[in-house]
Amino acid sequence: ILINEDKRPKQRGSMTIDNVWEPSQARKLGPYFHDGRRRIDYVLTYTVQKPVSMSPTSSGSFVRGLRQSLSRSLRRSTSSAQDDPENASELGCQEDVKRVRREEFEDNLMEMGLELEKDEGTKIPGVGFLKIHAPWDILCREAEFMKLKMPTKKVCPIMIIIHNFMEKISQFFNKMTKPLQPNVEDSKMETIKHLSYPFSREKQHLFDLSDKDSFFNSKNRSLIVHGVLKRTKCVRGKHNVGKCFQHSEAQINKNKIILLGNGVYTSAYPLHDVSNTSLLLYDEWARYSIFYKYQPIGLIRKYFGEKVGLYFAWLGVYTQMLIPASIVGVIVFLYGCATLDDNIPSMEICDPRNNITMCPLCDRVCNYWKLVAACGTARASHLFDNSATVFFSIFMALWATMFMEHWKRRQMRLNYIWDLTTFEEEEVSGASPSRAFQHLQILYCHQEITVKLTCTDRMPAYMTTLVMMCFMICATFVVVLGVVLYRIAIMTALQLTQTPATNVRATVKTTAAIINLIIIIILDEVYGALARWLTVPKTDKSFEERLIIKSFILKFLNSFTPIVYLAFFRGRLVGRPGSYIYVLSSFRMEECAHAGCLMELCIQLCITMLGKQLIQNNLFEIGIPKLKKMLRRRKTGMDTQEEELEKKLRRHEKDHFLGPFIGLSPEYMEMIMQFGMVTLFVASFPLAPLFALLNNVIEIRLDAKKFVKELRRPLAARAKNIGIWYTLLRGISKVAVIVNAFVISFTSDFIPRLVYQYMYSPDGTLHGFVDHQLSFFNVSHFRPGTEPLEPMLGNQKVEVCRYKDYRDSPWSDTPYDFSREFWCILAARLAFVIVFQNVVMLMSDFVDWLIPDIPKEINVQMQKERTLFVEMFMKEEQGKRILWNNQGESPCQPRSRRISNNI
Amino acid sequence: ILINEDKRPKQRGSMTIDNVWEPSQARKLGPYFHDGRRRIDYVLTYTVQKPVSMSPTSSGSFVRGLRQSLSRSLRRSTSSAQDDPENASELGCQEDVKRVRREEFEDNLMEMGLELEKDEGTKIPGVGFLKIHAPWDILCREAEFMKLKMPTKKVCPIMIIIHNFMEKISQFFNKMTKPLQPNVEDSKMETIKHLSYPFSREKQHLFDLSDKDSFFNSKNRSLIVHGVLKRTKCVRGKHNVGKCFQHSEAQINKNKIILLGNGVYTSAYPLHDVSNTSLLLYDEWARYSIFYKYQPIGLIRKYFGEKVGLYFAWLGVYTQMLIPASIVGVIVFLYGCATLDDNIPSMEICDPRNNITMCPLCDRVCNYWKLVAACGTARASHLFDNSATVFFSIFMALWATMFMEHWKRRQMRLNYIWDLTTFEEEEVSGASPSRAFQHLQILYCHQEITVKLTCTDRMPAYMTTLVMMCFMICATFVVVLGVVLYRIAIMTALQLTQTPATNVRATVKTTAAIINLIIIIILDEVYGALARWLTVPKTDKSFEERLIIKSFILKFLNSFTPIVYLAFFRGRLVGRPGSYIYVLSSFRMEECAHAGCLMELCIQLCITMLGKQLIQNNLFEIGIPKLKKMLRRRKTGMDTQEEELEKKLRRHEKDHFLGPFIGLSPEYMEMIMQFGMVTLFVASFPLAPLFALLNNVIEIRLDAKKFVKELRRPLAARAKNIGIWYTLLRGISKVAVIVNAFVISFTSDFIPRLVYQYMYSPDGTLHGFVDHQLSFFNVSHFRPGTEPLEPMLGNQKVEVCRYKDYRDSPWSDTPYDFSREFWCILAARLAFVIVFQNVVMLMSDFVDWLIPDIPKEINVQMQKERTLFVEMFMKEEQGKRILWNNQGESPCQPRSRRISNNI
Repeated sequence: ILINEDKRPKQRGSMTIDNVWEPSQARKLGPYFHDGRRRIDYVLTYTVQKPVSMSPTSSGSFVRGLRQSLSRSLRRSTSSAQDDPENASELGCQEDVKRVRREEFEDNLMEMGLELEKDEGTKIPGVGFLKIHAPWDILCREAEFMKLKMPTKKVCPIMIIIHNFMEKISQFFNKMTKPLQPNVEDSKMETIKHLSYPFSREKQHLFDLSDKDSFFNSKNRSLIVHGVLKRTKCVRGKHNVGKCFQHSEAQINKNKIILLGNGVYTSAYPLHDVSNTSLLLYDEWARYSIFYKYQPIGLIRKYFGEKVGLYFAWLGVYTQMLIPASIVGVIVFLYGCATLDDNIPSMEICDPRNNITMCPLCDRVCNYWKLVAACGTARASHLFDNSATVFFSIFMALWATMFMEHWKRRQMRLNYIWDLTTFEEEEVSGASPSRAFQHLQILYCHQEITVKLTCTDRMPAYMTTLVMMCFMICATFVVVLGVVLYRIAIMTALQLTQTPATNVRATVKTTAAIINLIIIIILDEVYGALARWLTVPKTDKSFEERLIIKSFILKFLNSFTPIVYLAFFRGRLVGRPGSYIYVLSSFRMEECAHAGCLMELCIQLCITMLGKQLIQNNLFEIGIPKLKKMLRRRKTGMDTQEEELEKKLRRHEKDHFLGPFIGLSPEYMEMIMQFGMVTLFVASFPLAPLFALLNNVIEIRLDAKKFVKELRRPLAARAKNIGIWYTLLRGISKVAVIVNAFVISFTSDFIPRLVYQYMYSPDGTLHGFVDHQLSFFNVSHFRPGTEPLEPMLGNQKVEVCRYKDYRDSPWSDTPYDFSREFWCILAARLAFVIVFQNVVMLMSDFVDWLIPDIPKEINVQMQKERTLFVEMFMKEEQGKRILWNNQGESPCQPRSRRISNNI
Repeated sequence: ILINEDKRPKQRGSMTIDNVWEPSQARKLGPYFHDGRRRIDYVLTYTVQKPVSMSPTSSGSFVRGLRQSLSRSLRRSTSSAQDDPENASELGCQEDVKRVRREEFEDNLMEMGLELEKDEGTKIPGVGFLKIHAPWDILCREAEFMKLKMPTKKVCPIMIIIHNFMEKISQFFNKMTKPLQPNVEDSKMETIKHLSYPFSREKQHLFDLSDKDSFFNSKNRSLIVHGVLKRTKCVRGKHNVGKCFQHSEAQINKNKIILLGNGVYTSAYPLHDVSNTSLLLYDEWARYSIFYKYQPIGLIRKYFGEKVGLYFAWLGVYTQMLIPASIVGVIVFLYGCATLDDNIPSMEICDPRNNITMCPLCDRVCNYWKLVAACGTARASHLFDNSATVFFSIFMALWATMFMEHWKRRQMRLNYIWDLTTFEEEEVSGASPSRAFQHLQILYCHQEITVKLTCTDRMPAYMTTLVMMCFMICATFVVVLGVVLYRIAIMTALQLTQTPATNVRATVKTTAAIINLIIIIILDEVYGALARWLTVPKTDKSFEERLIIKSFILKFLNSFTPIVYLAFFRGRLVGRPGSYIYVLSSFRMEECAHAGCLMELCIQLCITMLGKQLIQNNLFEIGIPKLKKMLRRRKTGMDTQEEELEKKLRRHEKDHFLGPFIGLSPEYMEMIMQFGMVTLFVASFPLAPLFALLNNVIEIRLDAKKFVKELRRPLAARAKNIGIWYTLLRGISKVAVIVNAFVISFTSDFIPRLVYQYMYSPDGTLHGFVDHQLSFFNVSHFRPGTEPLEPMLGNQKVEVCRYKDYRDSPWSDTPYDFSREFWCILAARLAFVIVFQNVVMLMSDFVDWLIPDIPKEINVQMQKERTLFVEMFMKEEQGKRILWNNQGESPCQPRSRRISNNI
C-alpha cells in the first residue's frame, strides 16, 4: 500500500489526509503514519529535485514557506554531505534514473508486503521521506526467517548454584553495590527468566501474543524491516534504463558504489522511540552526575541492540578493571616516593664528597661537569625505576589477561541473558555485514556486487594501497626523525647561548613532547580518512575489518613511534668520547641524562596521554559542538521561534537533523589506543592506568549522551562478540609483554644494578655502583676540534673524565673496547628478556586456561533450560499422540495422506 | 512392545517364534528382530544370573548345549571383564536390585515408544541381550528434537568460484591424483549437493520420504536411540528398593559409578552393518595394499559418524603434511652429507698436522689425548649441525602453523559437507558428553548425578590427584637421573678395564638409550592407567578432558625428559679441569664428545622414535593380537567347526565378541606424542618427519582394520572439531619454537661459529675456530689425586692441556675465569633465542592471519545455500498467502482461531 501523499491521495481506505490535525497531537508527531495508527519502522530519505514546483500543491503555503526557509538554513548547517539542489539540472539524467530505480524498488517492497508512505518536501524542502511500516503478518514471517528468538510464556527460575560461602559473599557484595546500581528494574537480579525460542508461526501457542503491538518492540521491528530491505532487489526486470544506468555500473570499478550508495537514497535510519525507555536511558545513563553508577546494559541493549550494548558493556568492564590497576599503580608510585631517600645510587650521586668529573655533553662549547649536577634527575628517575616497577610490569601483563578473561565471561553471560547463545555470527556476517556502513549499504543492488573482479582488476588498487601505506608509515618515521633533529638543533643553539643546562633540557623536552603530540593528533585524523579512502571493498564485512586494521596500524605507529624511539634508541647510538656519532655531519646524537632515558620516556608518555585525551575528548567532542551550537543560535537570533517549530516537526523529520550513526569503530579505536598506552609502556609509567580511568569515567557518559541525544538511532545490530577488536586487544597485550621486558632490561638500570650487586659488589650492596657504571676517558684522545674550550674544571686541569658506558680503560690492552662487564650485563639483560617473556606468557596462558570461558552457573542454567524445553515438547508430543491414537492415525505420516484420510 | 522370548512369547501379533528358521537366513542373521523385519538399532547386554535354569525351556537342547560350552570358552578368552557367574550367589541381593531397575528402565523405554526384544542366554549363556528398535514415529520425533539435519529434495549445484588460472591448476591436480582417489562414488568431486535442513514433521514435504527404511541410515538410527536412552530415567517412581539400592548410592562417592555403570547393564553398542558400505570400507580403506590412496572420508563418516571421521581426516591431513616436511628434512640431511668435506672445523680436527693435546676425560685412569681422535664424531656431528639446520627449524615452525591452518580449513570444509555448520557443540557437550565412555555412561541414572558434591567432599580427591601427579612426575625425573648414573658408572667401570674409548662410548650410549626407551614404554602404560584412576569426575565432558590433560602431561614428561636432559644439561654441569663437579662424591659428571652433544641427542631421538613406533605399533597392535588368536586356535583345535558356528551367530551376538570401542583418545595421544617428536627437537634430527611419515602410512590402515573388523561399532558421535587435541597441538607447536631456539643456540655450535667468523676470525673464515674454542689448562693445577697416571703423551711430557670452554688462560690476571669471549658468545646465544622466538612467532601469527579459517568457496557456497532456502520459503509463503487470501484469512493468526473460523 503505497501512499504518495502529493500525487495520489485518497486512493485506498486506510489512509489519512494531510494537514488535518487530529486530536491526539502527540501521537501525530510520534513515529506514526498519517493515520496515527501504523508505526513507522524505518525511514529512507532521498533528494527531491524540484522542491519548489512540488510544494505549492499542498495548502497552508505561508506557514509552509516559513518552515521551508527555516529548515533549509538548518539543513545547511547540519547535513553538508548532500548535494546542493541548485546545480541539479546538470544531473538531470542521473536523477531520472534514480527516480526510476526508486519506483521499482518501492514496487518490490510493496510486493514483499511492506506498507509505505511518502512525504516529499513537506516541511523540509528537497528531502523526500519514504516511511516504511511492517504489518503483523510480515513481522511474523520475517521473524521466523530470521530465527529471531522471542520470549515464550514458559518461565524458568534462575537458580544460581553457588557454594554457601560464595553465596554469602555474593549477597554481601550485592548489598554493598546497591547504591551503584542504576534505578532500572532490568538491572536488578531477576529470579525468573522467560525462556526464549526462535519465533515460528507454527509454534505460536508458545508465545504470549495478547498484545500484538508490543510483542515486537521497535528495535526488532526496525531489524525486520532492514532485513526485508536488504533482500529486496532494486531492479525487477531486465529492462534497460539507458546510458545513465551504464554510467552507474561503471562506478563499480571505482569501488565507491557502496559508500555513495548510488545516490538513489541518501540515508536510511530507524526512528528514535520517545518512550519510557528513552527517558529512562537519559536519566540513568547519560548524565555526568551518575558517573559512579553501573550502566543499565539491559536497557541499552533493548533500545540500541546487542552490538551497541556490547560496546558499552565492554567499556564498563574495561573501566572497572582499571580501578585495581590504578590502585596498584599509585601504590607503586608511592613506593618510589617513599624509598627515594634510601636509594644508594642517587645518594652517592648527590653526595658532594663524591668528586667525579664527567666528560662534556657537547663538542667545544660544553664544559666538563661534576656528577653532583645530575642529582635531581637521578632522584626523579628513582620514582619510575625501582624494583616495584618490575613487579608492576608482571602485574599488568597478568591484569591484561585477566581483563580479557573477565570480558569473555561477561560476554558469555550477556549472550545467555540476551539469548544469543545459539545465534550464528556467520549467518549474519554473510547476509548483513558492515554495521558501520549499513545505512548506505542497503542501497546498492545485490545484483551488481556479483560483477566478478579478477586479480588484474584489483591489482592497481592493491598496489595503491600498499604504496600509500608504506608512504604513510615512512611519513611517520620522518616526522619522528624531524622532531629528534629539532631537539638536537635547539639544544645546540641554546647551549651556544650559554643558558643554564637544566633549563635548556626541560624546555627542549617539553616543547618536543608537545610538538610530537600535536603532530600525532593531526596525523591521526589524516590517517583515519586516508585508510578509509584506500580500502578496496570486497565484501562489506571484510571491508570493515580491513579498514580497522589499516587505521589501527597507522594510528598505532603514529602514537608509539616517538615513544619507542625514546625508550630504545635514544642515548644508545651516541658513540663514545673521542668517537661520537654525528648525524647530518655536524649534530652529535642526543644523549640521555645520567640516570637513563626512563625519565624522558615518562614525560613523553604523560604528555601524550593527557594531551590526547584532553584535546580529543574535551575539545573535539564537547567543546566544538557546544561552540557551534552557541554560534548558530547567536547568528539566527530567533531561539524561541525555532524551538517552537522544532517541536512541531514529526519524529522522522527531527531525526533527519541528527547526525548519522557512523559505527562504533572510532569509539573502539580510541579505547584500543588507550589500552596500548596503559599496557605497553607501563613499566616506565605506573600512573597510566589512573589517567585512563579518569578519562573513561567521563568517556562513558559522553558517549551515552551522544547516542541518546545527538545521533540518529542506529540499527539494532545483533552481535555475539566484539569481533576484531578482541583480536587487536590480544595482540596488544602480547606485544606489551615483550615491550615491557625490553623496557625493564634495557631502558631501566634494573639489570646492571642486579648484576653489580651479585657479581661485582664487594659487600653485596649497591655502594660503588655509580663508579662501576662509569668508564674512563683520557682527554688527550679527543678528536682535534672537539675538545672543550675550557680545559679546566674549577681550578684543576682535567686529564681523565668519566662517561656512562662499560668500556675498557685507556691504559688497558684494548682501550675503549667493550669490557667483559659490558658483555656480562648484556647477557644478563637478554636472559632477563627471555625469562620475563616466557614466564609471563606461560602465566597468562595458565590464567587463560584456569578460568573457564563459560561461567559455570550459565552452563548449568543453559542445560536446565534445554531440559525444560525437551520436557515441554515431550508433554506436547504425548498430548498429540493421544489425540492421534484416538483418531487411529500416526503423527508422522505426510500431511497430504492424513488429510485424504479425513476426507 | 517388549518381547521377552523366554517368558511371554506370542503375546502380540508382530512377533516371530524362536528357532523356526525362516527362508531368508541371511536376513535372520542380520541385525533384525526375530520377525526379520524390524532393525535392531541398539543393543544393551547384561549378566543373566541363572543361565542353566533358563536355557532348558527352549528346544534343541543338544545343539544348544554344544553352543553354550563353546561360547563359554570363547567368552572367557575374550570378555574377561564380566563377573564369573559361579559366585553369583553372594551377589544375589545386588542382582535382584539390578533386575528390578532393568525392568523399570525397560518399561520407561517402552513408554518412550521404543520397541524391545529380549534374548536371554540363548546362544551365549550368562549374557542377556536387550535389542532395541525405534519405529518410524519415534525416529521422526527424535530427529526433530535433535535438530538432525537431513538432505532435502532441493539440490544446489556446487559452483566453486576460482580464478581461471587456479581452476586449471585444480583440474590438473585432480587429474594427477585420480589414481590416488579411492574407488568410492562419494569421494569424487560432486557437482550437486542436496541441501540439508533440520528435520521437522511440519516440513515433511521438503524431504524425500519415498523410502522410509533408508531415510534414516543405521548411523542415525543408533544415534536417535542413544538419545532416547540417555533421556530415559531409570527409576520411575519414588519407591524404595531396600538396602541394596542404598549401597549402590554410596558408590557415588567412590566416583566409580560412571565406569562401572552400576552393573545394571554390562555394555551397550549399535550393531555393525553388513552392507555394501561396510564391505566397501574394507576394500577401499582397511587394506595395506592401498596405502598410497586417499581415505574415503565421506564413507567413514557415513558409517562411523563425524567424530571418527574427523580423526581419520585429521590423521590423513597430518600424514599428507608430513610428505613435504620429510622431503625437506632429507634434503637438509643430504646437504649435511654433501658439505661434509668442506667443513673447516672438522677438517682442522682431522688434520694430523694439528697437534693439540687435550685434557683427560676421567680422573687418574684416563690419559691425555690428541684432538685428532675426535675426528669421526666431529664429521658425524656436521651432518646434524650445519647452517641448513637453522633454516629447517624455521621451516618446521612454519610447517606446524601451516599444518594447523590447513587442518582448520579442512575441518571447516568437512563441517560444510557434513552439514555441521549450524550444529552447536554446546548442546551435545552438555547432554551427551564423554564419547570414550558413552557406552557405559548411558547406564547410570541421571537422577543420581545431581547429588551435590561440595568442596570438602572433593578436597581429598583433589589432594590425592595432586600428590600422585607430583609423585609420578618425580618418578620420571628419578628414572632419568638413574639412567644418567648408570651411564656414568658403566663408563667409569669400562674405562678402568682399558677398553678402547670409541667402543666404550658407543656401547654406553646405545644401551642407555635402549634402557630409556624401555622405561618410557613401561611408564607410558602405567601412567595411562594411573591418570584414569586419578581423575575426579565432575561432568563427563570435563572428565574426559581432565583425563587427557593428565595423561598428556605424564606421557609428555616421560618421553621428553631424557631428551631435554641430553639437549640442555648434559656436558654443561661439568666444571673445568682442576675443579670438576662430582655427583655422589665420586662420579665426575659426564662430558659430551668434542663436537657437542647434538650427536648423542640425535641417537637418543632416533632410538626413541623408531623403537617406540616399532614396539607400540607393530608388536602391541599387530603382533600380540595375531599371536593370541593363533594360540587360541591351536588350543581349542577345532578351527572349522568353530568358524561354522560363528557363522550361525546373529549379528548382535557376533558383535558381542568384538572388543569394546574405548574412544579415540589413545589414538590421538599416540599421534600427538609423535607430533611432539617431529617438531620439538627437529633442529637436531631432520629425519624425524620421514620416520613419522613411514609410521603413519601403516598406522592409518592399521587403525582402519581395527575399526572395521576388530571393534564393536562406535556410536556415531557428532563433533565439529577435534576439541582439546587441537589445543594440545597448538601448545606443542608453541613450545617447539622455544625449544628449537635453545637447541640451535645452546646445543649446537652454530652461534660460536658465527661469532668467531664475524668478530674474532682474522680472515673472516672459520680457520682457527677449533683453536679458539679450546682453553688452556696448566697440568700442575690438577687437584691432587686426580692427575692422570701417565703424565706423558707419546714421548713428550705434557705441561699444558686444552679443554673445550671459554675461560681465561692460567697465565692471565684471573686464571680460569669465564673470558670476555664467553660472555660475548652467551649474549649472542641469548639474542639469537629472542630474535628466533619472536620472529618465528610473528611469522606464524602472520600465516595464521593470512590464511582465512573458512575457505572462500565454502563461504560463497554457504551464502548461496542460504539464499536458496530463503527463496524457497518465500515462494512457499506466497503460495500460502494466495491460498489464505482466497479464504479471507491471515496466515499469522493463532491456529485455534483459524480452526474455529472453519467450523
